[in-house]
Amino acid sequence: MSDVFVAGVGMTRVGRRSEPLRDLMAEAAHTALAEAGVETPDSIVVATMNPEEFVGDGNFASHVASHLGFAEVPAVRVETATSSGAAAVYAAFAQVAAGLARTVLVVGGEKMTHLATPRVSEIIGRSIDPYERRYGATMPSLAGLVTRALLTGHGVGPREMAQVAVKNHANGARNPYAHFRQAVTLEEVLDSRMVADPLRLLHCCPISDGAAAVVLVADRRAVRVAGIGQGADTLALRHRRELTSFRATRAAARAAFAMAGFGPERVDVAEIHDAFAPFELISLEDTGLLPPGKAGRATLDGDTALEGRLPVNPSGGLKARGHPLAATGVAQIVECVWQLTGRAASRQLGACRVALAHSIGGLATNNWVTLLEAA
Amino acid sequence: MSDVFVAGVGMTRVGRRSEPLRDLMAEAAHTALAEAGVETPDSIVVATMNPEEFVGDGNFASHVASHLGFAEVPAVRVETATSSGAAAVYAAFAQVAAGLARTVLVVGGEKMTHLATPRVSEIIGRSIDPYERRYGATMPSLAGLVTRALLTGHGVGPREMAQVAVKNHANGARNPYAHFRQAVTLEEVLDSRMVADPLRLLHCCPISDGAAAVVLVADRRAVRVAGIGQGADTLALRHRRELTSFRATRAAARAAFAMAGFGPERVDVAEIHDAFAPFELISLEDTGLLPPGKAGRATLDGDTALEGRLPVNPSGGLKARGHPLAATGVAQIVECVWQLTGRAASRQLGACRVALAHSIGGLATNNWVTLLEAA
Repeated sequence: MSDVFVAGVGMTRVGRRSEPLRDLMAEAAHTALAEAGVETPDSIVVATMNPEEFVGDGNFASHVASHLGFAEVPAVRVETATSSGAAAVYAAFAQVAAGLARTVLVVGGEKMTHLATPRVSEIIGRSIDPYERRYGATMPSLAGLVTRALLTGHGVGPREMAQVAVKNHANGARNPYAHFRQAVTLEEVLDSRMVADPLRLLHCCPISDGAAAVVLVADRRAVRVAGIGQGADTLALRHRRELTSFRATRAAARAAFAMAGFGPERVDVAEIHDAFAPFELISLEDTGLLPPGKAGRATLDGDTALEGRLPVNPSGGLKARGHPLAATGVAQIVECVWQLTGRAASRQLGACRVALAHSIGGLATNNWVTLLEAA
Repeated sequence: MSDVFVAGVGMTRVGRRSEPLRDLMAEAAHTALAEAGVETPDSIVVATMNPEEFVGDGNFASHVASHLGFAEVPAVRVETATSSGAAAVYAAFAQVAAGLARTVLVVGGEKMTHLATPRVSEIIGRSIDPYERRYGATMPSLAGLVTRALLTGHGVGPREMAQVAVKNHANGARNPYAHFRQAVTLEEVLDSRMVADPLRLLHCCPISDGAAAVVLVADRRAVRVAGIGQGADTLALRHRRELTSFRATRAAARAAFAMAGFGPERVDVAEIHDAFAPFELISLEDTGLLPPGKAGRATLDGDTALEGRLPVNPSGGLKARGHPLAATGVAQIVECVWQLTGRAASRQLGACRVALAHSIGGLATNNWVTLLEAA
């Protein structure tokens, strides 16, 4: 298996965007290609969760490739619900690692804000087990169940949970690409309206438009993909052995660290899938970055803040940077690369050599952990 | 890059099926796994073109993996419109070739017959360039334009075109998995009702339900994937340099033969994407299996019939076996493996060592050629 490097990255500002999805994806893609110094990639991997229902177009790999001016470059679309961006990075990684391509463009994006929120929820809700959906389950309602269970111990109370949002909003305020650039206080989070008890509005990521891109190559560059792993779990929440830890993350982390040949202690910075604030706490423990039951305390203590010993979601995370679904897994890699190469501007961390990106698909049915290392 | 072998194949009967899509996919998948002697695959690649709109479910890789009893096996979905099955085979091939997995289950399927035909056409129509779609273009209408151009020379007249359907129906009549098992005459094809002038009903593949699966492995087995290549072209038909030859097929064939290290003269049998009968003629020439302008004559002469010198679509092709979209690219591999291993029953060909499968995505925007060799 050949080594795989990141040669270029790019992303759009995340938020309510008026441009068509293909234009957002082109903006991110051309930025990444220019930085990589790649004129025409050998191959393209496109990530979108549901372009047919969100924007009314299908055959989206060809749609994007043609729009980019790369009609003659082979393109495929990869989808694993909300972790599609990470899955696309893996597909591109496999092509380069196998020697099937030397330069692969990965571009992920989603556009949703033009639709009414109930329609967006309906489309996202298709990720849930059909039987549970039939009883009215939505993504936030199931996340609420998980959170309720988490609050019965595990070192997590309302303040620990709220502090995740406070921290990530503070980080987002420093990120010009973020959907939300205003800080929030603990009180504002705790007083925000209930969405799915005990989850409140400010625990939840927004509905966002945006795109992100990376170019993976076989030739040596400044950042190497040291490990990448996928983990899976039952579609139905009722079939899980436990609610407060995601098997899919644990398996993904195990696979990624095994490939990398090092452990969580080497990680200097992490981008974690915080679609719901408590998921950041769960995932910090599932990835092995923090011991079981310790993530809440560490968050309150500022350990995961920008100036802490393990900065988490310097981008603002899904909570503040925003969550344009299939863009998210790629945008996490973009932030990691920016941090590893000293280009994160006012949110730049001190010396960091290893970054971890963690993405959740559906209600943690198909998760990914990617490890990047400054070469 | 490691060698990749086919360890097992399986498919459902194609046609109007009352079972849910996941059940069809499970039937095909478990058949392939049993044949492969693989209890639990390392990884799963799922192909469906549009499960959200056809059957109302998303996160389909997890949906299928969970239903199969493999909730803990990493699964991704791959999509390139009507060639999604072939794209999934490629994704699995890359995983095995890179050494990321030793056993990968590929399962493709689609279910459409429960919807009204205009709705199916609308969903499939999303594969067309949006600007052309806005003027009322549909997949058959654009195929009609291509066919009209083909009839202005190229050695193709109404009889040559109709004979493709006659041949493939005759083959389908011998295939217990086929949607259509009755023969048709040249006169019946020529007299069938006009669908998109000059395409008639019996030139067009049906709307079908079905699923197909293959298991790719790193360990030596009876059939090797000798080459696999993808080619692409502009989404918009009006941006093409020519209508009567598909650039995407030519590029895919070039890539596949380059990987295999041999040429079209080694091919003993081919499964060709004949969603519209004239596409078989175009594709036989684009793949290099027949010289330009010769496919029509060869077809009339019986060269591509079951007993001819280059049997094409022994399964019945999309025309008679049926075209359950994302299942098709996988079902072609299934038929090739059956032919290479002497298991095609009453449609079994004489000694054959090399088989070619050819799949078209959208209106030839994203095509694949896969070469299988008896090891």
